[in-house]
Amino acid sequence: MNVGVIGYSGNIFKEPIKSLNSLCDDVGRIIAENNWVLMNGGRDGIMQLVSKAVKNRGGHVIGFLPWEQEGNGYLDFPIKTGLDLNMRSFVLLKNVDVVVSIGGEIGTAIEILGAYSYKKPILLMKNSGGWTDRITEVLIEDKFLDNRKLVEVKQVSSIDELERILKGIEEVKN
Amino acid sequence: MNVGVIGYSGNIFKEPIKSLNSLCDDVGRIIAENNWVLMNGGRDGIMQLVSKAVKNRGGHVIGFLPWEQEGNGYLDFPIKTGLDLNMRSFVLLKNVDVVVSIGGEIGTAIEILGAYSYKKPILLMKNSGGWTDRITEVLIEDKFLDNRKLVEVKQVSSIDELERILKGIEEVKN
Amino acid sequence: MNVGVIGYSGNIFKEPIKSLNSLCDDVGRIIAENNWVLMNGGRDGIMQLVSKAVKNRGGHVIGFLPWEQEGNGYLDFPIKTGLDLNMRSFVLLKNVDVVVSIGGEIGTAIEILGAYSYKKPILLMKNSGGWTDRITEVLIEDKFLDNRKLVEVKQVSSIDELERILKGIEEVKN
Amino acid sequence: MNVGVIGYSGNIFKEPIKSLNSLCDDVGRIIAENNWVLMNGGRDGIMQLVSKAVKNRGGHVIGFLPWEQEGNGYLDFPIKTGLDLNMRSFVLLKNVDVVVSIGGEIGTAIEILGAYSYKKPILLMKNSGGWTDRITEVLIEDKFLDNRKLVEVKQVSSIDELERILKGIEEVKN
Repeated sequence: MNVGVIGYSGNIFKEPIKSLNSLCDDVGRIIAENNWVLMNGGRDGIMQLVSKAVKNRGGHVIGFLPWEQEGNGYLDFPIKTGLDLNMRSFVLLKNVDVVVSIGGEIGTAIEILGAYSYKKPILLMKNSGGWTDRITEVLIEDKFLDNRKLVEVKQVSSIDELERILKGIEEVKN
Repeated sequence: MNVGVIGYSGNIFKEPIKSLNSLCDDVGRIIAENNWVLMNGGRDGIMQLVSKAVKNRGGHVIGFLPWEQEGNGYLDFPIKTGLDLNMRSFVLLKNVDVVVSIGGEIGTAIEILGAYSYKKPILLMKNSGGWTDRITEVLIEDKFLDNRKLVEVKQVSSIDELERILKGIEEVKN
Repeated sequence: MNVGVIGYSGNIFKEPIKSLNSLCDDVGRIIAENNWVLMNGGRDGIMQLVSKAVKNRGGHVIGFLPWEQEGNGYLDFPIKTGLDLNMRSFVLLKNVDVVVSIGGEIGTAIEILGAYSYKKPILLMKNSGGWTDRITEVLIEDKFLDNRKLVEVKQVSSIDELERILKGIEEVKN
Repeated sequence: MNVGVIGYSGNIFKEPIKSLNSLCDDVGRIIAENNWVLMNGGRDGIMQLVSKAVKNRGGHVIGFLPWEQEGNGYLDFPIKTGLDLNMRSFVLLKNVDVVVSIGGEIGTAIEILGAYSYKKPILLMKNSGGWTDRITEVLIEDKFLDNRKLVEVKQVSSIDELERILKGIEEVKN
């Protein structure tokens, strides 16, 4: 199963990313332990922290990079898409089975909505800040992002709950 | 000046698009009268109604189509992007100077956020429904879509106000 | 009818482009006189010369630009594709009914082959140099670019012959 | 090092692919033995044969798929590009360090020229047919594909020569 993780880009030693280090490590840990493939945007911030957490445990990481940029140092396979930041996000989204969202500014917001439009389930890490929390204010029936009800968006409160839900999605897939 | 108009896709004889016919006609009218170029997604729904309003007044319409789809019948230049619905939206957004939003489901939401990420001003037609209204519930300081404050999002209450703001944007551009 | 014209990029005052000025003017003239739309890559070299020839006669010119580059000064509608030089060529090719080729280096060669793969007829201006002439050395049965025989490639010896063939293609299309 | 292998698509049990089975197995073997990553278009024909040869020896295979197509059964990581056959070829080419070409129709020809335009060295397996042999008829100074002399195209006569040249490219890269 390919797990997409999205969220804040930026310097991992500065807020708001710094405080999310432990959460990112946990998310990376369950991805590696379950032998899932981490797919992300291949750059800094949340992408870097989760990549590192997966890679250091011997897991697999694929990063979808904008243009011909180099990736962070924790990618098994950096994929240069030749596309800009936004367009490359949609290539990432086409390849994942589920999206986990942690904080995030406008790029993350676009990825949350993009995942929904591609009918990929979205798991929002509660209280991780940014658009991951903000998007919950505009959900329809507490779980949809438009009236077509394409796929469910869920808030997740703990790493155990995240692992349980991801395992459930994997089961349905197999 | 290239004016992007986004919003609901779908059958123009059915709600919620049917009730927006008159608004779309007005938006198309001011685009044609000011000799601006209408750029949109080239398909049905709001795209079709505004295209028709511009075209019937002798104005210019360019539609950015997904894949190799045919456009609605009111495009001067249908541009086949070869890209999917979402990715083609970003090509559209790269080419406009400003975006006017009318109602809309998830595709419109992605375009609103995408326009913001490209720093294109966004004008939301108040009470037109869908994401055009919903997005106002999550604005930061009543006008931004993230903490980077890239460009302002404005709610517009009347066609006269829309024309006045568009003329202002044109002046700054020239 | 949308006529794509491809060929050398580069400085129009230097060889090999300089000597092709008159041919480009003729090609632009018949496009404008027949009310066809010129579509090209929107940049310098052959693209610029033919754009100018069409534009100065009141014809229509659409340029498909790489990334967010600005076009040459003779485009009615510069389309920013956000894609690199090569990928944007394929967006151009999707939109044309026929391709006219004048000289050209590797980018032109890719466009000739790309046009063939999309089954768009290709008209090679004889003795215009570069890949436009070189490609004739590897034609299968003097007109195909692979064993699938997708569409015919033709060498054209004069501007009158070019106009006659283009009119024929237009007739079939209508 | 990422080694791109391009060539005929189509049924592997039919000519001209059937007779290239042994060559493809050898190419896959040296890629696996040297711990290089095979990158290709992820589909049938040469892509499938070389994927299988690498995968069965425990090597790594990444396939760049058109649209949202499924890959052949020998990919570690099928990457859905969302792009058409041609545009996805350029994403593949951005990610490889070198291209090995075996036979091939128009798609292969486009990839050979595309690799050259991206300055990726191209190794043509001699007598493998199609465009891999045909392109040698139009080389400039026996090794270039245009007057800009961007990168060298080489004909390779044996699997040992191929391995030696690939090792040389790897050394320069490191």
